[in-house]
Amino acid sequence: MDIREYMAQVGAAARAASRLVARASTRAKNDALLAMARTLRERRDELLSANAADVAEARAAGLDAAMIDRLQLSAKGVESMALGLEQVAALPDPVGEITDLKRRPSGIQVGRMRVPLGVVGIIYEARPNVTADAAALCLKSGNAAILRGGKEALRCNQAIAACVRAGLTAAGLPETAVQVVETADRAAVGHLVAMPEYVDVIVPRGGKGLIERISKEARVPVIKHLDGNCHVYIDTDADEDMALRIVDNAKTQRLGTCNTAESLLVARSVSTTLLPEIAAMLQAKGVEIRGCAETMTIVPNAKPATEADYYAEYLAAVISVKVVDGVDAAIAHINKYSSQHTEAIVTENYTAALRFLREVDSSSVMVNASTRFADGFEYGLGAEIGISTDKFHARGPVGLEGLTSQKWIVLGNGEIRQ
Amino acid sequence: MDIREYMAQVGAAARAASRLVARASTRAKNDALLAMARTLRERRDELLSANAADVAEARAAGLDAAMIDRLQLSAKGVESMALGLEQVAALPDPVGEITDLKRRPSGIQVGRMRVPLGVVGIIYEARPNVTADAAALCLKSGNAAILRGGKEALRCNQAIAACVRAGLTAAGLPETAVQVVETADRAAVGHLVAMPEYVDVIVPRGGKGLIERISKEARVPVIKHLDGNCHVYIDTDADEDMALRIVDNAKTQRLGTCNTAESLLVARSVSTTLLPEIAAMLQAKGVEIRGCAETMTIVPNAKPATEADYYAEYLAAVISVKVVDGVDAAIAHINKYSSQHTEAIVTENYTAALRFLREVDSSSVMVNASTRFADGFEYGLGAEIGISTDKFHARGPVGLEGLTSQKWIVLGNGEIRQ
Repeated sequence: MDIREYMAQVGAAARAASRLVARASTRAKNDALLAMARTLRERRDELLSANAADVAEARAAGLDAAMIDRLQLSAKGVESMALGLEQVAALPDPVGEITDLKRRPSGIQVGRMRVPLGVVGIIYEARPNVTADAAALCLKSGNAAILRGGKEALRCNQAIAACVRAGLTAAGLPETAVQVVETADRAAVGHLVAMPEYVDVIVPRGGKGLIERISKEARVPVIKHLDGNCHVYIDTDADEDMALRIVDNAKTQRLGTCNTAESLLVARSVSTTLLPEIAAMLQAKGVEIRGCAETMTIVPNAKPATEADYYAEYLAAVISVKVVDGVDAAIAHINKYSSQHTEAIVTENYTAALRFLREVDSSSVMVNASTRFADGFEYGLGAEIGISTDKFHARGPVGLEGLTSQKWIVLGNGEIRQ
Repeated sequence: MDIREYMAQVGAAARAASRLVARASTRAKNDALLAMARTLRERRDELLSANAADVAEARAAGLDAAMIDRLQLSAKGVESMALGLEQVAALPDPVGEITDLKRRPSGIQVGRMRVPLGVVGIIYEARPNVTADAAALCLKSGNAAILRGGKEALRCNQAIAACVRAGLTAAGLPETAVQVVETADRAAVGHLVAMPEYVDVIVPRGGKGLIERISKEARVPVIKHLDGNCHVYIDTDADEDMALRIVDNAKTQRLGTCNTAESLLVARSVSTTLLPEIAAMLQAKGVEIRGCAETMTIVPNAKPATEADYYAEYLAAVISVKVVDGVDAAIAHINKYSSQHTEAIVTENYTAALRFLREVDSSSVMVNASTRFADGFEYGLGAEIGISTDKFHARGPVGLEGLTSQKWIVLGNGEIRQ
């Protein structure tokens, strides 16, 4: 069988399964999720050794540190996946939820019912936890899923997929409700994104190159997660301790994640007092400062930032820094250079906070909190299938709701249109 | 200036205006809408004579009856446009609305803020009222709009666009917040749908050919409105009078609209009692019946339906009819043949009603009401920019909400991620 036929077969099986999953009871879906969690814990050692083999191969192949960081799975990571599945099981079932049912002057009652999208295709790189998260969110939202993970995580993904299938079977749901593409052939992706008859939406998770290629080739909607060039802006009226704490956490808590701060903006009025302290703290942790001309005069050992630095998602121990006039300049800089992922302001000023919230055009906008909070778990979604930097459909962390749609329902009593 | 340069200029102006409109006060937007309504009423005779010239030319060119019906504007139509603008002014401003603000265990408060999409491109055919409706909905939702109407309605559209500009100017908003493409060059559409730097979403309104062409060429998201092959299913437990009344209204109240019923399904158990009566009523109104073999034996003068008939959106005095086993067969038939627009069941049976509501995969699903209610005004949206037959983003009648997105906001007090 050639790759096109194989993918069409996977797609047709997903479409058929999606009809059953859309109608599945909440109990059956939850039973499956809990059985998956149980199986993950039971097979922990098996998962870890599969992952260790993946990591060893990745290191030998010379993958960069951020990639290895994402690939690596610990015992804690397995437990976190299992807990994630249990959290999704504990979430309310969004399918069939009826909202906004209102009586209209004509006599009809009009409302909305939440329904699954159908078949979701997930294309991701070397993050094994995505396999479990994606399976859980797709299933709970009543969708069938086709998962295509990175070849670097193949062993671990296959081991996780086996746990997922075991859970589906235990709950009497079709195994084909979650399928992992079993071929390493890269052409599989091209087919997956171009089968509107079988796939309703694609969620790519990975590098910008992958996502841009998919967006270009896709013949179905794509929930895009481009890069995370996240900003922290220290306003004139910032609390000093809070500014230090937030920049520290946003930049250094974890270097390789999309909600890590990559750029620091500082109001001129506090640049000579606050910036040296912040820079010293970052440099003490090994973070390289690439600054504007003004930063260079304030921060010892800073390197000059180029225009490209302000657009960069480093995923490394580097941060770009710019001194700006105030909140207007900060908003303008962010709306120009940001990837519209997550931005934070540190301020005690009411008007500055509200203007930043309203006018910054990013998927998450924060006041006095670390950008690292931009995450489905932290937002209470139970898990996330991705962080959308699009404005259309879902924006920011995408959980259950982002994988559903709302249809209109009308309850009448024989009404006709006048 | 060539057409590509012209469209890029229109796009750049829209992008610049979108920033101002996104921040515009509710009062300014409402003032503009009310001034537009006033101007439409003042220039009513001018609009009607522009429309009369359009209609005369369309008749001379031999356009079909459904097209002429859509093109035609009456004094009542002008008043209805003006009322539509006033209704949109009276609607709550969706921009900046904050919902679901909840405190998380970490201490941060997480919520969502509704924001405009940016620049909306509308491509439509010969319905002059779309110009005013689209302008109103885009403006109120904080978006800039680029409107490209059908050449058949050019005179009337230009007259309406002048009223829209007058309203924007009166309220101190940029005229470029709503631009009408001034060229008849068809290449304008190709450029409009392929400028992601200037346009955030395309809403095509027109024939299937136009929409399919746009979907194929588009490099930005498209809110698709394909055809309306709407069904009415008469269940075993239908109230007889209600069944007659609803089929009559759904099929004959207006033949040329997308929410008109094009297919009638009748449960076998009531086919010999109810179908003759319904068919006689339709035939008396000049509606041709194209039926299945069973229908042919029940309805005098019925013609045999082909497979293509069950997929057809006639927009004419024709209806396809099929006798089915019951609600299961009706749901299966609809999910196969329907364009996923609007379907109605007539029944007194609780379980049949709920199953139909849950399992029919269309944008509007109704119990005991006419399909003709699938409409933004009837649903209370104030107006509609289209009826989406997609599942992604907006589904069914699209009003203000469908033209916005929600970003996440986080209100912190110095919290950092653990």
